[in-house]
Amino acid sequence: MKNNKIVILDSTLRDGAQGEGISFSVSDKLKIADALDKFGVDYIEAGNPCSNPKDAEFFAKVSDRHYTTAKLTAFGSTVRKDTAPEDDENLRALLSADTKYITVFGKAWDLHVDCILGTSLAENLKMISDTVTYLRRNGRTVFFDAEHFFDGYRANPDYAMEVLKTAEKAGAAAVVLCDTNGGSFPDYISKTVRTVCKSIKTSVGIHCHNDTGCAAANTVFAVKAGAVHIQGTFTGIGERCGNAALTTVIPDLQLKFGYGIVSDERLATLNKTARFISEVANVRLPANLPYIGKSAFAHKAGMHADGVAKEPRTYEHIDPSLVGGSRYFLLSEASGRSSVLPKVQVYDGSLTKSSSETKAVTEKLKELEHMGFQFEAAAASFELLVMKELGRFKPHFEIDHFRIISSMDSLDGHAYTEKANALVKVRVGDRYEITADEGEGPVNAIDKALRKALEVFYPELKKMHLSDFKVRVVSTNDSTAAITRVLIESTDGERTWTTVGASRDIINASVIALTDSLEYMLKDRQSSD
Amino acid sequence: MKNNKIVILDSTLRDGAQGEGISFSVSDKLKIADALDKFGVDYIEAGNPCSNPKDAEFFAKVSDRHYTTAKLTAFGSTVRKDTAPEDDENLRALLSADTKYITVFGKAWDLHVDCILGTSLAENLKMISDTVTYLRRNGRTVFFDAEHFFDGYRANPDYAMEVLKTAEKAGAAAVVLCDTNGGSFPDYISKTVRTVCKSIKTSVGIHCHNDTGCAAANTVFAVKAGAVHIQGTFTGIGERCGNAALTTVIPDLQLKFGYGIVSDERLATLNKTARFISEVANVRLPANLPYIGKSAFAHKAGMHADGVAKEPRTYEHIDPSLVGGSRYFLLSEASGRSSVLPKVQVYDGSLTKSSSETKAVTEKLKELEHMGFQFEAAAASFELLVMKELGRFKPHFEIDHFRIISSMDSLDGHAYTEKANALVKVRVGDRYEITADEGEGPVNAIDKALRKALEVFYPELKKMHLSDFKVRVVSTNDSTAAITRVLIESTDGERTWTTVGASRDIINASVIALTDSLEYMLKDRQSSD
Repeated sequence: MKNNKIVILDSTLRDGAQGEGISFSVSDKLKIADALDKFGVDYIEAGNPCSNPKDAEFFAKVSDRHYTTAKLTAFGSTVRKDTAPEDDENLRALLSADTKYITVFGKAWDLHVDCILGTSLAENLKMISDTVTYLRRNGRTVFFDAEHFFDGYRANPDYAMEVLKTAEKAGAAAVVLCDTNGGSFPDYISKTVRTVCKSIKTSVGIHCHNDTGCAAANTVFAVKAGAVHIQGTFTGIGERCGNAALTTVIPDLQLKFGYGIVSDERLATLNKTARFISEVANVRLPANLPYIGKSAFAHKAGMHADGVAKEPRTYEHIDPSLVGGSRYFLLSEASGRSSVLPKVQVYDGSLTKSSSETKAVTEKLKELEHMGFQFEAAAASFELLVMKELGRFKPHFEIDHFRIISSMDSLDGHAYTEKANALVKVRVGDRYEITADEGEGPVNAIDKALRKALEVFYPELKKMHLSDFKVRVVSTNDSTAAITRVLIESTDGERTWTTVGASRDIINASVIALTDSLEYMLKDRQSSD
Repeated sequence: MKNNKIVILDSTLRDGAQGEGISFSVSDKLKIADALDKFGVDYIEAGNPCSNPKDAEFFAKVSDRHYTTAKLTAFGSTVRKDTAPEDDENLRALLSADTKYITVFGKAWDLHVDCILGTSLAENLKMISDTVTYLRRNGRTVFFDAEHFFDGYRANPDYAMEVLKTAEKAGAAAVVLCDTNGGSFPDYISKTVRTVCKSIKTSVGIHCHNDTGCAAANTVFAVKAGAVHIQGTFTGIGERCGNAALTTVIPDLQLKFGYGIVSDERLATLNKTARFISEVANVRLPANLPYIGKSAFAHKAGMHADGVAKEPRTYEHIDPSLVGGSRYFLLSEASGRSSVLPKVQVYDGSLTKSSSETKAVTEKLKELEHMGFQFEAAAASFELLVMKELGRFKPHFEIDHFRIISSMDSLDGHAYTEKANALVKVRVGDRYEITADEGEGPVNAIDKALRKALEVFYPELKKMHLSDFKVRVVSTNDSTAAITRVLIESTDGERTWTTVGASRDIINASVIALTDSLEYMLKDRQSSD
């Protein structure tokens, strides 16, 4: 009997860990698993205990966690050739993870059987059958990942189908068709899934990679063709070009094609969950990621901004709040009072387009943009600017002075760059604090020293850190004396905000942006004096 | 007559500029246009002279450039309602760009006509017809972008089709179907394009945005359904979630479906061109971008790396060299040598791909790129690297040590940033020179001091100055302590050359690039000692 409910298996902790630059600690994995459960995925494929000792540690630690929606899944390969399952140490490791669900992958492409396993097509089928049978006999529910299924089906459709049937006959609860090399397109995926669904009675799953830029389309069209088990990683991280991003395919299917995958309330936490997971994984969430990127509902062209103000549907394909996002207008030189108005109205609903306050903010904005500031990507600095112009800003600190020393020495013809040193004195109310720190370069040094001095007064700053730092030389006419614009993205683990500074001096520009970033973190706090 | 050749219109400089955080200078735009022409796109949609004075300046400057494959295109909207074309200042600005090709966009969704234009459906048709006719009468070839075509066709297919027919009748050389809000999927796109191609005789184009993660699939399936004019941005930058990335759709169509879009030689420069454009645009090329991202052919899983070593097809959907990429895993050093070879042969024509010198340069290159250097846009540094590895480089100076002091003071609550001060001591042969200077920020200060010390020995350095200075933060994992890459462009009035430096410390990165820049200027000089 085919199960009509679409289930989601998140492989952030397993296939996502194959992405370049990704490295999870056990504690990272626990945090991400908690977030995935809270969001509402059905399965968390949490690691490969055979190949990774850290994953084994994770499975030991996670066993006393109680998840409400998600079931944990361990991942491993079929038995080795010419080995009995009970003698296979990989299968033993897989069972020792002690999960009720196990995903095993096996070969579905004859090229791989020959070239990688170096065995016969018949022996590969026996390995698949033995593995599934053995794991089931040990009380596990088994999902069978048919590795390279789509390439295999292209090369030898009869054999690829036999692989699926073997897994089904051995009792696999789902057979998952993998586009392991990511080279396929939705028409072929769709046609193939439809054919498979005619012959296979157990649940059919889909697992896509993004090497042709089609992972989302391929996943969506596999589901439309009959697949009911979706594998992906939450934000699309994974080997090479990554996996299908669940943050794309879940809203695609639910909002555009009416599939009921998670509740509306849970879907509205998509944005927040993705941000949290990216933060823990220490990867930057691409700004243009569909539905959840920072720019996904950002309007820059003046005409688009005007249009959305009149009727959101004119330039928005969905209501951003459905996925927990929000519309925002990028402020650029061209933007006028109509885009400033909603920002000042947050503080005073009675203000209009022609109020002197609206005019003052617009003029200040233009003046600063002329000096090299750019607020379109620095909403936090813009908010502070509005507060200042409306007389609602009270600074939490003042820098009295700083000195930064950068130096290089040489010895026997070798250059030695030393750490930059920064000394800073701050005033908070009538109290002063002077301290120093060192860092990799002058900006890192002053950031550390400033934070160290201020944490004496505001311990909550310890929760905050910089998550991105961008430097742009604005005018090129004057080479190293040109205007430098610095954008700093900061986070306290929940919120993320961006501030800007501009100056002919990069240090000065950085200190302006750092100051805004700290003030933004402190702005909702009761005044300290 | 339908034109069967697929043409590419690159809108990096126009729609790409709508991406969050993108801001091109006129000089950036000229560099990007040169690169696009060299790669081989058919049209460069270079800006909107009506809405942006910087774009008008660009069109004035570009007019004496000779491009071999690309034709420049200006972009603007149809005439305002109730206005005669000859009285419309936007159309006047559009003509003043003096390009042979013009793209005009008009409304194809009845909702927009009513809600945004506030006019009748008939008047909108008249505006489209009048605009195309007027521009053609002024000698222009006109592409008509049917904005929101797919939403419009969904809402009111008869009217959307009438819009296309009106543009065709008025003489548009192509009607381009835009998925402006990016909310569509390949099945609907494909079916709709097929229907349009039955009724429209002029070329049909496609313009997709990525809000459902399907921009690439949508573009590919529009072409398979009959579209022959593709609009996109080179690396996918653009409003909200971006445009279809030409770096994805060109290889998808050419390598997977056999369309002949550019020559094989040009396709092999895809990677290099994308890197250059991203560098100039000062945006990060996402590591997992299909075909050209840093990780696109990176193998992390041991099994994948082993498999690829046995038979590349097992874990690679295409041969990376077809798009100028290279497979990337720790074991390999085979890749890259073929691109290094021509550079070493400049110094020794007898060298081959397997010479130890070629190998040494390739390894050094990889080592430095791993450290954050990037030689794609820094040919002068690369030439020095080759000279060093071949033992042909003799340094003209050595920095013995430097100190840079950056400081800020406050007086009566006002902050005063002081000029940065730099002291430097250099050695040339057995002579030393120690001096100091001040500048706008630490980099300007050390640049001036270093130059002042060296001009004592090399007076010709007076002719040279920096013409551009770019800073990029390469990895974001560690905020202000991340790797900073500095690109410096220098000129002696005749030649222009670019050098690179990378370090965790921006000062150090700048000094590396400055040193290369000075050495490059001096390299053809007779030795001073």
